[in-house]
Amino acid sequence: MAATNCSLTLAQLLGPNVTNSGAAASFICDQFSASTNNFSDTKFAVDTVYLLFSAYLVFSMQLGFAMLCAGSVRAKNTMNIMLTNVLDAAAGGLFYYLFGFAFAFGTPSNPFIGRHFFGLKSVPSTAADYSFFLYQWAFAIAAAGITSGSIAERTQFVAYLIYSAVLTGFVYPVVSHWFWSPDGWASPSRTSGDLLFGTGVIDFAGSGVVHMVGGIAGLWGALIEGPRIGRFDRTGRSVALRGHSATLVVLGTFMLWFGWYGFNPGSFTKILVPYRSNNFYGQWSAVGRTAVTTTLAGCTAALTTLFGKRILSGHWNVTDVCNGLLGGFAAITSGCSVVEPWAAVICGFVAAVVLISCNKLAEKVKFDDPLEAAQLHGGCGAWGIIFTALFATKKYVNEVYGGDSRRPHGLFMGGGGKLLGAHLIQILVIVGWVSVTMGPLFFVLHKLKLLRISPEDEMAGMDMTRHGGFAYVYHDEDESPPNGAQMSKIKPRETSPIGNYEN
Amino acid sequence: MAATNCSLTLAQLLGPNVTNSGAAASFICDQFSASTNNFSDTKFAVDTVYLLFSAYLVFSMQLGFAMLCAGSVRAKNTMNIMLTNVLDAAAGGLFYYLFGFAFAFGTPSNPFIGRHFFGLKSVPSTAADYSFFLYQWAFAIAAAGITSGSIAERTQFVAYLIYSAVLTGFVYPVVSHWFWSPDGWASPSRTSGDLLFGTGVIDFAGSGVVHMVGGIAGLWGALIEGPRIGRFDRTGRSVALRGHSATLVVLGTFMLWFGWYGFNPGSFTKILVPYRSNNFYGQWSAVGRTAVTTTLAGCTAALTTLFGKRILSGHWNVTDVCNGLLGGFAAITSGCSVVEPWAAVICGFVAAVVLISCNKLAEKVKFDDPLEAAQLHGGCGAWGIIFTALFATKKYVNEVYGGDSRRPHGLFMGGGGKLLGAHLIQILVIVGWVSVTMGPLFFVLHKLKLLRISPEDEMAGMDMTRHGGFAYVYHDEDESPPNGAQMSKIKPRETSPIGNYEN
Amino acid sequence: MAATNCSLTLAQLLGPNVTNSGAAASFICDQFSASTNNFSDTKFAVDTVYLLFSAYLVFSMQLGFAMLCAGSVRAKNTMNIMLTNVLDAAAGGLFYYLFGFAFAFGTPSNPFIGRHFFGLKSVPSTAADYSFFLYQWAFAIAAAGITSGSIAERTQFVAYLIYSAVLTGFVYPVVSHWFWSPDGWASPSRTSGDLLFGTGVIDFAGSGVVHMVGGIAGLWGALIEGPRIGRFDRTGRSVALRGHSATLVVLGTFMLWFGWYGFNPGSFTKILVPYRSNNFYGQWSAVGRTAVTTTLAGCTAALTTLFGKRILSGHWNVTDVCNGLLGGFAAITSGCSVVEPWAAVICGFVAAVVLISCNKLAEKVKFDDPLEAAQLHGGCGAWGIIFTALFATKKYVNEVYGGDSRRPHGLFMGGGGKLLGAHLIQILVIVGWVSVTMGPLFFVLHKLKLLRISPEDEMAGMDMTRHGGFAYVYHDEDESPPNGAQMSKIKPRETSPIGNYEN
Repeated sequence: MAATNCSLTLAQLLGPNVTNSGAAASFICDQFSASTNNFSDTKFAVDTVYLLFSAYLVFSMQLGFAMLCAGSVRAKNTMNIMLTNVLDAAAGGLFYYLFGFAFAFGTPSNPFIGRHFFGLKSVPSTAADYSFFLYQWAFAIAAAGITSGSIAERTQFVAYLIYSAVLTGFVYPVVSHWFWSPDGWASPSRTSGDLLFGTGVIDFAGSGVVHMVGGIAGLWGALIEGPRIGRFDRTGRSVALRGHSATLVVLGTFMLWFGWYGFNPGSFTKILVPYRSNNFYGQWSAVGRTAVTTTLAGCTAALTTLFGKRILSGHWNVTDVCNGLLGGFAAITSGCSVVEPWAAVICGFVAAVVLISCNKLAEKVKFDDPLEAAQLHGGCGAWGIIFTALFATKKYVNEVYGGDSRRPHGLFMGGGGKLLGAHLIQILVIVGWVSVTMGPLFFVLHKLKLLRISPEDEMAGMDMTRHGGFAYVYHDEDESPPNGAQMSKIKPRETSPIGNYEN
Repeated sequence: MAATNCSLTLAQLLGPNVTNSGAAASFICDQFSASTNNFSDTKFAVDTVYLLFSAYLVFSMQLGFAMLCAGSVRAKNTMNIMLTNVLDAAAGGLFYYLFGFAFAFGTPSNPFIGRHFFGLKSVPSTAADYSFFLYQWAFAIAAAGITSGSIAERTQFVAYLIYSAVLTGFVYPVVSHWFWSPDGWASPSRTSGDLLFGTGVIDFAGSGVVHMVGGIAGLWGALIEGPRIGRFDRTGRSVALRGHSATLVVLGTFMLWFGWYGFNPGSFTKILVPYRSNNFYGQWSAVGRTAVTTTLAGCTAALTTLFGKRILSGHWNVTDVCNGLLGGFAAITSGCSVVEPWAAVICGFVAAVVLISCNKLAEKVKFDDPLEAAQLHGGCGAWGIIFTALFATKKYVNEVYGGDSRRPHGLFMGGGGKLLGAHLIQILVIVGWVSVTMGPLFFVLHKLKLLRISPEDEMAGMDMTRHGGFAYVYHDEDESPPNGAQMSKIKPRETSPIGNYEN
Repeated sequence: MAATNCSLTLAQLLGPNVTNSGAAASFICDQFSASTNNFSDTKFAVDTVYLLFSAYLVFSMQLGFAMLCAGSVRAKNTMNIMLTNVLDAAAGGLFYYLFGFAFAFGTPSNPFIGRHFFGLKSVPSTAADYSFFLYQWAFAIAAAGITSGSIAERTQFVAYLIYSAVLTGFVYPVVSHWFWSPDGWASPSRTSGDLLFGTGVIDFAGSGVVHMVGGIAGLWGALIEGPRIGRFDRTGRSVALRGHSATLVVLGTFMLWFGWYGFNPGSFTKILVPYRSNNFYGQWSAVGRTAVTTTLAGCTAALTTLFGKRILSGHWNVTDVCNGLLGGFAAITSGCSVVEPWAAVICGFVAAVVLISCNKLAEKVKFDDPLEAAQLHGGCGAWGIIFTALFATKKYVNEVYGGDSRRPHGLFMGGGGKLLGAHLIQILVIVGWVSVTMGPLFFVLHKLKLLRISPEDEMAGMDMTRHGGFAYVYHDEDESPPNGAQMSKIKPRETSPIGNYEN
């Protein structure tokens, strides 16, 4: 309540017998006003602490991606893939600052694309503070990271620079505008028009917006490039080209798990939001529940994969378990805030099955994705979108998205089919949009001979031919004992084995 | 104060001459009420932010464990040990969700075991929110991680799956119920009966509950399995089987250090708790002090180990320093919140001496624990429990645990011997409970030939025989220069050197 | 307002006709007082959460340093360099606790050096809480980490122990006192005397205080020791001695990036500070902006280095990009809180150019710094100090540093040359102070033959000669196939290839 209204009302209630009712009222109301302001300031500070540290966690996923990718490729291409991961973050930072964020969250704008906040102009405002930008940037670079996995070990670096700029600067921001901006045509918290099917799409942290976008882009890239040399032998049999370090795969997976606690629970962007006042239950509780559903989906998917692959391949395979875990996370990302913990277990179980099936299918059609990124982020991401439409509960949807209490929720929870309809549209629209933008881009690069490296370079490894040398040097030759066989090394061109003359 | 009471009281005080004293009073009291509610909501949000991010830090210790373990074993068993670490977290997630959390913190219940909250039923409530579950889950999986280190490099994977489920699902939760649940018989904040010896056990973050439990379980596993082949030569001399990567050991140690800031300072679970109002000193300060005591104990233990091992072995050894550091942390974990910083220095110094002594003893009795986990978590954990009983200060015990201001504290701080008595009981009870549960379990597995792998598999390494291949492939043979010796590789069974035909 | 004043004033305003005006007034004022106290408590808790988690992030930079350093040296010196990184943190913890913190922030004291808080005596107080100590400790150990990079691969371990103690215990704390303590002679928030040039030095998170100090110390160490054997060939040509693992370099760089979000945005030390009340814009927004400027400077520097080195060397080099990125961070660290995002882009661009130039210069004068630490932290740090003096905006300087609204700001932003004058003095004073303390120290160590290891040890690698063995063992010889060449190993002295007999 405004301080002047407070004073007038209170002065009247105190009445003329009070010595100075006006002064008394305004004295009291000033204190009320100070208290309200304190709470307002507190709310900004608490929400920012929560959002910023969540953003840092999401950023740490980039480290996770880098290590996961590095471990999943052969040693000879390690420098190449890590460089793409560093540049996802670095180039993504500049592009997202210059226009990506504006396309995504610039407001007020039309339902298709944002058109404010270029170069952070007019930020901070009530619509967007710096911490929100940082959080969204960390999401944007995650999408690009997914794609770089799909086309690893055979793509020209210049092609990488081009698609990465287009993806983080334009393709991804537009999709996030549709589903997450209050102006977006399919947003569940749309303020400038009717909700799609009366509900909008509930893609809370982006199984579709982030994972499917990255996965479908990777699908097109990998399809157009074709498989790596040696991935399928002359008879067409699949040959696993194993990554060079399971340790890096596990390191990367754990970092991604760690970072996912910023990705999913952080997507509320605010935590000091009571659902009803003076009660232990509020948005803080929903944030915690989101962390729990995320954990359970991943854990279940990991266990399912462990036993599933044991039956299929006879091994207890740690890298498969890691991928299964990530598939569970990619799937729960859409519905994490609006489903019960037990439903998350179902989500994770099916996600593991989906991933194994997609991998079988990929093998059958001779599709080669070194990180299984298209299968994992595309396939499990799509399952997650459907899962949400089936299991979202009425209570949680109303708390998280507010508005009309009769809004649709999950089909299996008695919420009708409208949400499922909206979510099927999301899948179609994302597949369509990414295909018509990234597909032609990869195709043109292919035709211009800018996409795939030469077979000679592929055999020798890109680190040696393009990135100045091999990623690892464990023994210097001149210091090995004179007798005894030596560890062989691929010699960098025109360089001595112990060091390179610098240019 | 309830809003209606406030109105009645205030209306009387204002009296009949005020024009509308009832309305004025309730107008004013509504504002008071709003302010109180705002504070209540704020408190929930701030405490949740603090607890959730602490939980994420504790979770990151699992990454630390994985890397520490990986680096401490030989390369041929890297995939095996990392898989156990991933599964500690994943299987632990499901078991702890289904019943572990209920056994530990289900309330109201008896002093021995909890019996509510199975599958998170009735959560959230005033007794437990989701963030508290997540935090406790991260603790549970830490205990299992400790044990997997003790029995590394020679244990069948199926044995691992069984003991891990029992430990996280039952053995550990029961112990945490005793000492940490408000219903537990030895809890220092027990609400449903007398405190043990008038004090209860002060095991703030779990030198006993977590570290000793994991360490004693590991002790039995390693004892029953016996040492790895080659660990003691024919004459009985000790042969160090060095881990394959000191880099991973350091990486893991730093991650554990990082995560320990969630483990110890996070164990307050709430931070917005004034000790007296409007003063710079409150629980936030105690949380900071806990981070400082933790740091100092670890640092002192690391330095003590550095110079101690230099004298004993002639080397400046980084992996020993890492273990010393972790020993200091394991020791301070019990008393971190109730001792002065200078006492933490003593704690760390003695912890390093304890660890070196335990390692000497282990060698003498031909006990082989690849991670020194039993010595480190068991030995230093036990020292930490005693340390707390000696150095806990009156002021801090009263602030952190509240209640009767005459409650016992540290013996050396003039607090009498009751706390020491309670703590000796804790040590006995933990050793007893873990021994009667995990000891027979490992013994039965041993008798059923499910515990130890065959000598052939042990020589070849488990990665090759059970997990589908070696963790590392640095050079592909077909791409090596034709002349020049080749790096030899252990060939995976029935697989080609550059890749495996998939099943 | 004090509760008694409130009661008296309000009682008078209510006047004699109110039944019990005194009681009514004090009833109301008690509530006001409770609300104010709640806010005070909340502020302490929120600021502590923010500061502690920032401190944890800064601490994680030590892990980043360790991995960056490990990856940047040859495999044979990995254990050595990692041990120095662990000890930076551990020894730094004790020294900073005993006297470093007192020299830096002990207050009240003279402008040159602090003289309270030894061993955390009188902490907590209104001047310093434990969380502040922890945060500053994490900064102190970062400085020592920088220096250890410069003198890597050729320094005796005992020399390292000595310089590290002097640096964290004395040299660095004194510098931080000058620029960051409210008593410091060049502090921009000096309370005990005039501001230097009416402005003081704005070195917000320490481009000078941390990075230049570490870099200049490293410069002297590396200069006095001379280059590593083989770094320049007989004709004087530069030979790159490549680090042994690009993966570790990338891992370390990402961890440093992650930790920098504690370093720069955390340096506000408080976040619940409204600039004007009940507005979305306050210190929380400035903290977010600082995270954004930090990100943009690093990203721009990385991209500039990518293309710059591509032109200069023909490669797309990931380790160079990592160094460029870190150079951008080191530069923005000074001005991150007081410049616009677009200015951060300029800062990063120039930082990359500065780093490339410094490296060219170092090569020319045959200066060998294995981590480029002197160039990166010294050179880019100095640029950052100048950058701040050019681009600091009036608005941000006033908000962040308060005081007189006419205080000078950046030269290019119309703020006059006084800030630039103060900043040039900072550069001179830091170069001077570190040179007259660390220079003679390294020189004396050199004369006493305690600084550099013998050529034989340098060729064999320090891990083998001083640290008990090689960091990596990927294959155990006895388990290799009997036919087929073996990977050669440098044999540890007097140890068997599969294990060491322990002493």
